[in-house]
Formats: sequence, structure tokens, C-alpha cells
Amino acid sequence: MARIRLGMVGGGNDAFIGGVHRIASRIDDRFELVAGALSSTPEKARASAAALGIAPDRAYGSFEEMAAAEAARPDGIEAVSIVTPNHVHYPAAKAFLERGIHVICDKPLTATSEDAEALERAVAASSALFILTHNYTGYPMVRQARAMVSEGALGTIRIVQAEYPQDWLTESLETEGVKQAEWRTDPARSGAGGAVGDIGTHAYNLACFVTGLKGTELAADLQSFGAGRRLDDNAHVMLRFSGGARGMLWCSQVAPGNENGLRLRVYGDKGGLEWAQEDPNYLWFSPHGEPRRQIRRMGAGADMAANAVSRIPSGHPEGYLEGFANIYTAAAEAIRAVQDGASRGDAIGLLPGISAGMEGMAFIRACVTSSARNAAWVAL
Amino acid sequence: MARIRLGMVGGGNDAFIGGVHRIASRIDDRFELVAGALSSTPEKARASAAALGIAPDRAYGSFEEMAAAEAARPDGIEAVSIVTPNHVHYPAAKAFLERGIHVICDKPLTATSEDAEALERAVAASSALFILTHNYTGYPMVRQARAMVSEGALGTIRIVQAEYPQDWLTESLETEGVKQAEWRTDPARSGAGGAVGDIGTHAYNLACFVTGLKGTELAADLQSFGAGRRLDDNAHVMLRFSGGARGMLWCSQVAPGNENGLRLRVYGDKGGLEWAQEDPNYLWFSPHGEPRRQIRRMGAGADMAANAVSRIPSGHPEGYLEGFANIYTAAAEAIRAVQDGASRGDAIGLLPGISAGMEGMAFIRACVTSSARNAAWVAL
Amino acid sequence: MARIRLGMVGGGNDAFIGGVHRIASRIDDRFELVAGALSSTPEKARASAAALGIAPDRAYGSFEEMAAAEAARPDGIEAVSIVTPNHVHYPAAKAFLERGIHVICDKPLTATSEDAEALERAVAASSALFILTHNYTGYPMVRQARAMVSEGALGTIRIVQAEYPQDWLTESLETEGVKQAEWRTDPARSGAGGAVGDIGTHAYNLACFVTGLKGTELAADLQSFGAGRRLDDNAHVMLRFSGGARGMLWCSQVAPGNENGLRLRVYGDKGGLEWAQEDPNYLWFSPHGEPRRQIRRMGAGADMAANAVSRIPSGHPEGYLEGFANIYTAAAEAIRAVQDGASRGDAIGLLPGISAGMEGMAFIRACVTSSARNAAWVAL
Amino acid sequence: MARIRLGMVGGGNDAFIGGVHRIASRIDDRFELVAGALSSTPEKARASAAALGIAPDRAYGSFEEMAAAEAARPDGIEAVSIVTPNHVHYPAAKAFLERGIHVICDKPLTATSEDAEALERAVAASSALFILTHNYTGYPMVRQARAMVSEGALGTIRIVQAEYPQDWLTESLETEGVKQAEWRTDPARSGAGGAVGDIGTHAYNLACFVTGLKGTELAADLQSFGAGRRLDDNAHVMLRFSGGARGMLWCSQVAPGNENGLRLRVYGDKGGLEWAQEDPNYLWFSPHGEPRRQIRRMGAGADMAANAVSRIPSGHPEGYLEGFANIYTAAAEAIRAVQDGASRGDAIGLLPGISAGMEGMAFIRACVTSSARNAAWVAL
Repeated sequence: MARIRLGMVGGGNDAFIGGVHRIASRIDDRFELVAGALSSTPEKARASAAALGIAPDRAYGSFEEMAAAEAARPDGIEAVSIVTPNHVHYPAAKAFLERGIHVICDKPLTATSEDAEALERAVAASSALFILTHNYTGYPMVRQARAMVSEGALGTIRIVQAEYPQDWLTESLETEGVKQAEWRTDPARSGAGGAVGDIGTHAYNLACFVTGLKGTELAADLQSFGAGRRLDDNAHVMLRFSGGARGMLWCSQVAPGNENGLRLRVYGDKGGLEWAQEDPNYLWFSPHGEPRRQIRRMGAGADMAANAVSRIPSGHPEGYLEGFANIYTAAAEAIRAVQDGASRGDAIGLLPGISAGMEGMAFIRACVTSSARNAAWVAL
Repeated sequence: MARIRLGMVGGGNDAFIGGVHRIASRIDDRFELVAGALSSTPEKARASAAALGIAPDRAYGSFEEMAAAEAARPDGIEAVSIVTPNHVHYPAAKAFLERGIHVICDKPLTATSEDAEALERAVAASSALFILTHNYTGYPMVRQARAMVSEGALGTIRIVQAEYPQDWLTESLETEGVKQAEWRTDPARSGAGGAVGDIGTHAYNLACFVTGLKGTELAADLQSFGAGRRLDDNAHVMLRFSGGARGMLWCSQVAPGNENGLRLRVYGDKGGLEWAQEDPNYLWFSPHGEPRRQIRRMGAGADMAANAVSRIPSGHPEGYLEGFANIYTAAAEAIRAVQDGASRGDAIGLLPGISAGMEGMAFIRACVTSSARNAAWVAL
Repeated sequence: MARIRLGMVGGGNDAFIGGVHRIASRIDDRFELVAGALSSTPEKARASAAALGIAPDRAYGSFEEMAAAEAARPDGIEAVSIVTPNHVHYPAAKAFLERGIHVICDKPLTATSEDAEALERAVAASSALFILTHNYTGYPMVRQARAMVSEGALGTIRIVQAEYPQDWLTESLETEGVKQAEWRTDPARSGAGGAVGDIGTHAYNLACFVTGLKGTELAADLQSFGAGRRLDDNAHVMLRFSGGARGMLWCSQVAPGNENGLRLRVYGDKGGLEWAQEDPNYLWFSPHGEPRRQIRRMGAGADMAANAVSRIPSGHPEGYLEGFANIYTAAAEAIRAVQDGASRGDAIGLLPGISAGMEGMAFIRACVTSSARNAAWVAL
Repeated sequence: MARIRLGMVGGGNDAFIGGVHRIASRIDDRFELVAGALSSTPEKARASAAALGIAPDRAYGSFEEMAAAEAARPDGIEAVSIVTPNHVHYPAAKAFLERGIHVICDKPLTATSEDAEALERAVAASSALFILTHNYTGYPMVRQARAMVSEGALGTIRIVQAEYPQDWLTESLETEGVKQAEWRTDPARSGAGGAVGDIGTHAYNLACFVTGLKGTELAADLQSFGAGRRLDDNAHVMLRFSGGARGMLWCSQVAPGNENGLRLRVYGDKGGLEWAQEDPNYLWFSPHGEPRRQIRRMGAGADMAANAVSRIPSGHPEGYLEGFANIYTAAAEAIRAVQDGASRGDAIGLLPGISAGMEGMAFIRACVTSSARNAAWVAL
């Protein structure tokens, strides 16, 4: 299969997530990065493009320029990765979707509900795929967990415990010139949610992905512990799911000793599952009344749902980049399928798309609304 | 120091917690069990007493009888352990407190708020000590954690995450003749709280003990997942503490794969602490911006608060019984101190007593009330 | 069952292991300490006895005096615990065995091979039981492991990996007045083995106990890393067992970060087992080709071999003292059985006795001999 | 920097390690795979090349053909990866080295000592780099460990414990048509060492890399537990190092429950370090007398030695492929440096090369020789 011609919006030299997307796109060799609007600063955009081996005539100063020029080329990009701060997601995605260029977009979906709704319309109006990088769903043992729940290994789900603690905003780095901290705590660029938007959405998405349940309502108590901080940096959320399951979700950016402590625990009337992102090659399964079992990626007990997205044998750890690459590789297959005539719905399969994005926006909005009402229940 | 003459109410042959109290009382050799009203069934009471080496004339058929008879003996018991279902705590405690006999009572305090208030008055009216076995506060590394928080190692506390999952009521054992399950799920014997009373109070007590904070209000969502179950078996609670800290508490009896997963995580603006009851000899300390450290009981970094309640060197694990014994041994010292003229307040030190019991009752009541109001905030 | 009247040799106020024996003897309430020759310093012996509630007339100045006097009393001790440095084990044990008093003795058996052989003869000539506190065999999950190997869960045993690293002699504490370090590194009091005698024997005993195999020969490379140290403080040993299994054993007192890291791993052609003393409530079982399982004390998968020596439910950790108590409680039952006419062989059951002691002495001697011959193979 | 034009020998469709090399070469985008002799079966070679996007005219039937043809092209490969069974390493490497094409070769170096010596001469005679993929040295926390030892954080090294247990040959898969098992257990293709060659060399290399010590002699006891197996599948080795340190090494392919359990523990007179390949983002550091510390990749306490070979923030796990990619990326930099005039010695830096390969061969030979002499000491 020929590599897919890929462009990138954002992700200039000193950005974190742009580099992650590029590595993820290369691991299985399904993409070739050929164009970029890598920075809103023209010189930086050019320098970053050069460093990445992008031809000078395809190093653009803006996403609008790139969308127009690439759409006009016979060898123009087939897909674009959008790795900017949240407030740019919508206008950039729209520009490419309108031209039939497939979009792979970082999460959360957008900075505002208005943008989210407009983006939803833009996706509906386009023939192109829209893929949201809820990358944790790409981990093999997350796939294993989802398959096991779906097959009934846990029975009826009763309890969902999700958490995502970090510590990087324990001090108010946004006042000390740290760029990541600045935009992540700026409502204009991040939207109404701080921790709930940046990491809470990941935890919520993971809970829904694994259990197959939908959240129906939530009650949230949000805090901003950092001095002068304008967005939440810690959130406590109670959840109610379709079918009667209940849950809790904790996300925090101010919990010292935690780096990316995303963790999911799910319990049904027949068994329990536990998974932690920092130790991702293992899934703990406790059939009720039997010893706990450690299911290992590509090891005994792992099934096709996990093995199909694994590359190397058990005992050789795969990590974050490989999980992220699984999103990209599935995106490549979906793009080729659509190009070959498949419907978007058939092609996208397990990939997170616009509906996962809208669910994430609803989660953020409900958290902020509930907290403003002293943690009253708000429908999702 | 001569051993304290001890009686016991409840704890007949097949009870779990009675045996724990007896071992705990023996480990440091500070008590001698000389009398008992071990069962409400007379033959069982006698047989249990004989098996424990209690003289036949001190094997009583009821706690009333025992209180009267022992108070009249020159060598009568100095203290009594009450290890019955919750609804017996108050009448039994009252009978001994009125006679100046020190009481060591299992938690939660009582089955009802009325009993709790009456017990509070009985304690006030007595000269005897009332000690509640919130035994987890006896673990050395819990003492270490409390000392570290108190000394400011974590800075200002922001977040408290407490949990106590179990799985033993995943199925409705109360319908299958399991006695422990029967009374634990019976409002008449356990009170208004199921999981919140049995284990939620432990988690809440631990959070307050370690942080030194008081809960001010809570919002709780309680469930009864077991078919036909009359009390909660799973509870999700959001907490607000004095001083602005926020927390979550989860307790469950229906989470397969969890046995006694009591765990506390506390985060301040300078560092974090984590402790788990199932791995109790270790305390994880994360000073913000430095590597996580594993502080081990009696090992490097452990201070007098922990070492004073340890018996054996680091690397040789102490467990639940030793932590429980620390409550008993401190009780023995408090009893001797009171006998030597110390005030009850001075003597009781870190031991949990009537106020911890009242806080636990307030916690149960607030959980039940809040949940009945769809998780509205209720003051503690 | 009436408590067994117990005496103690050694174990004065500041000794470590004496206190462990006393607690272990009390946990299940099967012994009463009524006499002692607790120190070779008379005042210290008296003061220690008083602190332990031993009557003044049964606080002796020497074990010889105690043996003679107690044997003459109608209420004399039925058993004695010997918790002295190694070189006293033989003469003390002999004095009591000759008088028909049961002996519970700390390990290793003796300081010299001559003493060991003489002790073996003394045991043979006596009607009393001789029990050696290889206490790690008392852990419930060690019993579970032994039962599983015996029942064939691992198939034919191929590989045995045993280790016991510590770090307390990393610096030469014996030159700084630390009493434990002084006698442990003194050939006159400890015998020919340093680390191999103190902890290597435990690891070797555990390996044999769990697998049911006998060592046939070994090759050992011993080191004394501590400056001026006269005995080994680190040992590397290759082992060959009956039936063709091979193994390695590492013990060390100079491995920083290790406290009592006794660990055993056993692999057969059908599965593997792993157990660690510092996390003793869990046994890891890997049936070949299936996920690893965590078998928990009193939990799912634990069988009678483990449950019979457990006191409290799963999830409430038992530790070192409870494992040690299992030796004492089994000793009590063995003593009563012998008193009731059972043969010593029938009564002793799984308890370690003189043969385990002789095997430990053979292990020490073989290690020292092999190392002196540049790690040549030496028969066991 | 332009990508390096890369060829590959071996690594056809169903090979494991070839795919690993290809991913590793792509992660940092420093190589482009343009030619291959991917299989000794011509059709398979062609099909594999097509699947990898290699132009048909650069899909060769043999390495000899590829070496000749590529050397003659102006756009010929600059480097070649050799990922065949061991016996092909020498002739293939020689063919490319003679033509000045840089070689990246899988380990162990060769199947025989004769080949190893010939290869050493071929490297000496060439201007090209020879790089051996002892990939575990590429893990960031292995670099961290090496730097810490080198800076004296552990003091003088006393003890080195290395192990690499696996379980995949527990049953005799080589008799059941499993190709990996067939050549790994075939002396003609693997050489004189089975487990010692395949994984023992990794453990030994890692021990030397981290400590900076050289092995001086070893005593080895090798076994072949698998029925009918012709090479060792389990090895117990005692080691002596320059400077007086002592060590043990265990490698096994028949230890059920172990996948790729490579683990290194190093102890000096000031501290200890522990690292495990299956949990590679953490390094445990125990300064003597202080609490254990968990140093995390890119986290607090990690220094430039580790961070320079990391891509993503702490808490997002990197794994085996990223560690392997560090070897490839360093190889790319070394190749460009040599092309720019640097000496091979300067360019190769920390990369494992011919001397590491010769040390590995000496290790295998010494293990086999020692074991044949009943574990006598053999010089390294």
C-alpha cells in the first residue's frame, strides 16, 4: 500500500504533541509528511519544515494557504494532522474538510460549544473522514479490555472508576513563561475546561470506550488550586451511565508524584478489570471468586482484539507511541477504504471521530455547568 | 506492668473480629482475657469461653450479667472489648461505662444516631475510657504519614483521595445463610449504612486522621447493586474539608478482585503521600519535583511516630494484627495512666474515641441523607 | 488446651530475636513464659525477667541452673526456647534435652560441625522434641507453594532460584560497637559461615522445603567485602539437586536497598511459582501457556495447606510474626501429641527439626569448603 | 539531515527481528529502506520487498548480489542491516564492509569463533562502521544507570546480579515446526550457545555496559532441559570482574511465567541500582541509608544521559522499539559523522560495535567451555 501524503497544522519545533503525531505516523510506515503549516510565526514555520525534510514550496505560513494550495496540486496531501491549541481545531479542520482532505485532529474537539457544533456540521457536509486522537484507545490492552467487557466476561457493569492525575501544574508555571502551561490555562485558547478538557476527556472517553456505556448525567466539583489560575486544575466527578452503572472520575494537574496516571477500573457482577496507562502492557482480570490474572500483551490470554494492534512479542514493552501509532495506522486503513468506495461509517470502525468529540465536549460543558451549580446533576 | 484484666462481649467461636481483638490484645502481652459474654446463645457462650480458657464462673450468658458480676468482684475485669453487631454496641458499652469499666468497642459507633447520642452522654457521665477500634490508625506507616503532614512535608493539603473496595458481597450472600452477610446487610443490626458504615467510616476516619482535617460537607451517591439488598453496597462520595481541601471517597463491597483495598492518597502544594493497607509497610512520598521515595517501616526515612509502634526490623513485614495490637497496647497504657490519675483526655492521646465515633456516625448519616436527596451537599 | 509452660535462654532486653519468639509464642495463646535465663549478665537477666513478668525465683543466671531447677519442679517448664548466639545452641539444647524438656532453637543449628554432630546425638538420646525455627516455612503461602509442587502443579522441577539479600552490613558496623554486627561476624560465636550461615541457610531451607528436593552438591564463591570482616558477607552459589534440578542461591548482607529480600522462584516443565518474603501474602503461579495468577492468602485459589495456618481474611495482611507463630503453634501441638503418646516423628509433621538443622550445617560447610577450593563442587 | 539509504539482509515477511529493525529505523526518521535481500527463498524475497515498498530492481535474491549491485549504484545503500540467523552474520557483514557500506548487525556476533575472528579482521580492514544491536543499551534508564555508576553514585562496585529468564522453549517447539525454535536450537545456525548466546550475551553486555567493568573469568553450569534439545536452554553462571566485583548471571528459556525478564541489579559500597527491561521507564536507586528512590524517564532525578535518548514526557511509557530506535538513531549520527570525516572511534561513541561482539563471543565460549569442565573457572 502506498504511503498516504500527509500535511500538518501546528507542531513546530518546540511543540510536544506534533512530534508525537509524526512518530506515530511513521511507526507502521503508512504516511509520508509532505506539507506543513507548522507555526503561526512564518520563519518558525519555514525552519521547522526544513528540519522535517518538507520541500520549501510546501512549507506554508497558514492553514488556509496550505488547504488551498494542496487541494490544487495533483500530488496534494490526502490527509492533514491538526496539532494546534484547541481554539484552532475548528477553523483548520473546516478548511480541509471542505476540500475533501481527511482530518486527524488532536483532542479535545474544540475550545467552544459553538465551534463544536459548527465542526459537526462541517463533518456532515464533507466526504472526508474526521478522526480525533483519543490515542489511549489504541493501546492493545485497552482493546483487550473492551473486547472482554463486550463478550460478557464481567457480566453486567456496575461500577466504573476512572482517574487521570498529573502534577505538572502544582506550581503556577503559567506565570513563569512556560508556553504549554500558558495556553493550557487560558480559556481563550483551551476553552471552558482546564484539567477536565485536557485530561478529563481522555479518562471519560476511555471509560466509555472500554465499557460501551454512555454517560447520562454527572455531578462535578471543580477546583483551581494554582494561585491565579483561570481554569480548573482538579476535578471530582460522579457519573451515572446508561444501564444503571455508576462511576467516579478524578482528574488533576496538581497531584505531586503523578505524571500521566490514567487508570481505569471496571467492575461487573461477574468480574473486574484494571488497567493503568503507565504500565500499559498488562491487564488485570479478576473473575469473581478466582485468582487475579495478569493478561499480557501478546501473551497467554490476550486475544485478537489486542494482538491485531501489537507489533512485538510479549515481554518487550510497547508504549505510548505504539498506542498512538495504532490510531494512525487505523486511520490510514480507513482513508484507503473510503478512497476505495467504503462508507465513512464502515471505514472508521473503532476509531474515535466526531461523535466521540461531541461526547467529550458535552462532558466538559457538563462538568463546568455542574460545578457552577454547586455540583448539581447535569445531563450529558 | 501487670496485665489488664479483660472481658469480651461477642466474639464467640465462629465470629471473625472477636478473634482479631483477642490476638491483638495478646501480641504485646498487656491484657489477660478472664471473662466473657461471648454469644447470645448460652451453650455457645459457654463452649466458646471454655475453648478460650475462661473460668466457667466467668462465662456469662449476657453482657448485663457480666457487667454486674464483674463489677462486684475484687478481681473483676478492668476493661471490656465489645465485638458484637453494631446495634449491641450502645447498650453493652453503657452497662460497663456506668460501672467504671473501660470500654474498647468495635466500629461503627452504633446502629442509630439516637444510640450514638446516648452513648456520647454515657461516656461523658463515666470516669472510664471509651476507645473505638479504628484499627487502621494503628499501622506504623499511617502514623508516619500523619506526622509528615503535620510537620508540613506536603505543604497545604489540597486533595484527599480515599477508597476502600471489597468484593465479598458481589453476590447476595445474605440470602444464602452467610451470617456475616446477614447482619451486615440488615438495617436493624447494622444501622442506616451498609458499605458506608462498615468500611466507608474506616476510609473517612483514616483520611481525617492522616490529614488532621475535618470534613465540612459531602455529596454522596449510594447504590445497592446486590439483588434484594437493603443497604448500600457501593458508595461514591465527594468531600469538602476545612481549609479548602477537596476529596473523593469510594467504598464498595461489590468490586471483584478487591479484598480490603483501603488506600489513601493525599496531595498538597509541596508533595504527595500514598499508602495502601494491603501493602502496609511502605509509604510513598513524592516531594514535588523530586523522585518518589519509598519509606519503609523501621527503615531509612521512618521516624519515631512510626518506629514507636513497630516491633521488628524493616523488611520483615508487620500486618493487620500488629496494627490492631497497637490500638490495644495504647489502650493498655491509657488505662494504666487513668488508673494512675491522668485525665482521660491526656491519657487517650492518638487513640480513636467517642469523638471519632461521632464523626463516623455523622459521616454515615450525611451519606444516607445526601443520597436520598440525589447527592445534594449535606453538612458534616 | 492448657498453655505450655515455656522457658527462654537468651533474649534479654535489647536482643531482637528473643522478642520475636515471645510474641510468636503468644499470638495463638499456646504458651506461657514462666522461666528464663535471659542473659549471661546476672543483673540484666533479672531485670529482663522482671520486665517480662517472670517470677523472681524462676529468673536464672545460667541455662544450666535453669535446666536443673525447672526439671526438679512439679510445675517446671515443658519447653524451652533457645535464642542465643549460635555457639550456645548446643550446650543449652543438650542441658534441656537430657532432662526431657522440649527444645525450640534458633537457627543455624550450631557454630561448629562438632557441636552439630553432638547435638544430633543428644536429640537421638532424648525423648524430647527438637524444633529449629526455620520460621519462613511457617508462612501460609510457602505452605501453599509446597503443596502445589507436591501435587504436581509445576510438573518436574527443573530450576530453583533462591536469594536473600540484605544491606545492614554494607558498612563495617562490627567495628562501631553494634552488638548484632559483632557476634554475627565473629567466627567464635557464629561459626564458619557469615551470610551463608545467617541467611543463606534460610534460603536453602526454603528451597528444599518448597520443592521437596535435596541438594546433592554445590559450588560457592564467597566474599568478605566489608573492610576487615572475618566472615563472608556475600555468597554466590550454584546448586544441583536430586532428580536433576539445578539452582542458584545468592545471599548478601552488603546489597544497599535490600532489607530481608528472601525470594524463591521455582520452575518445572508445567509451570512456575514465585514468592517473596517482603510481600508474603501472595504467591504467583504461572501455569505454562496461561496468564500469571496471583494466589492470595485465604483468597480464591488458596487451599487448606495455607488456610490452616492463616488467622484472618484475605486482604488483611499477615506478616513475619504470624508466620513465626505458626512454628510455635505447631510446636505446641507436637508437644501435646508427644505428651499424649505420639511418636516424635509423627508429631513433628512439617516442623523443621534436627535433620533440617544438619542440612543447614552441611550447606554452610560445603559453601566454605567449596569457596576455599575456588568454587569446586562439594557434595552436600 | 537527509535520510540514510538503508538495505536489509534477512527479515522477510514472517521474521520477528527484521520488523523490529525496520520500525526502529523509522521512528526518528533517519533511514529510508531502499533495498533488500530479505529471504534466501527468491519468491519470498520479492514478495517481502514489494510489501515493504522496495523497488523491484532493488529486491535481491542474495546478499552477495545486493552488495555488488548497490555498491555500483550512485544512489546505492549507505548502510545495511543484517537480521539473519547467526551463521550468516559473518559472510554478509564481510560482503558489505569490503565495499565500504556501513553494517548494523544483529547479535550475537557470529555462530563460530572462527567467523568472529574473521569478522574482526574484516572490520579492521574496512573504512565502514560495524554496529551490533545490543539494543538494551539504548534504553534511557540504562543510560541513566551507566552515568550514575560512572559518576560514583554507587561507590565501588561489589556485586552484579544479571538475569534474563524466558519461557518460550519450555516445551520442545523445535520438534513441532516452529521456525524460530528450530534455528535457535540448531548449533549449525546458532553456534555453540543456546540460551547463553541468544539472551545470556544480552545480560552480560548490559552488566558490562552499566558498570563499566570487564569480566575476567566465569564458571558456568549449562543445562538442556528440553527433551532432545541440542543447545543449552538454561545457564547458571558465576562471574568475576576487574576490580574485584563478583556477580551471577542466570539466563533461561524454560522458566514458565517469564517473557523477557532481563533484569540488572548492581551494588556498591555507597548504594544500589535496579532495572528491569519489562518496566523500563523506571530506575530504582538506593543510596545506602536513605529511602529507595524511583527515578523516572524524563522525570525528576533523570539526567541528560537518559533525557537525550527520550522522546516524550515522563509518565508516557517508552518501550522496546524506542530503545532499539536509539541504537539506530545513534548509528545514523555516527554514519554521518564518519562521512564528514570523523574517525570511526570518535563516531561510534556509546554504540556497541565489534569489541562488544567479541566480548559476547568470549562469554559464550567461556560458558560452554566451563560447563564442559564441570563449571571450572575459565578466563574471559
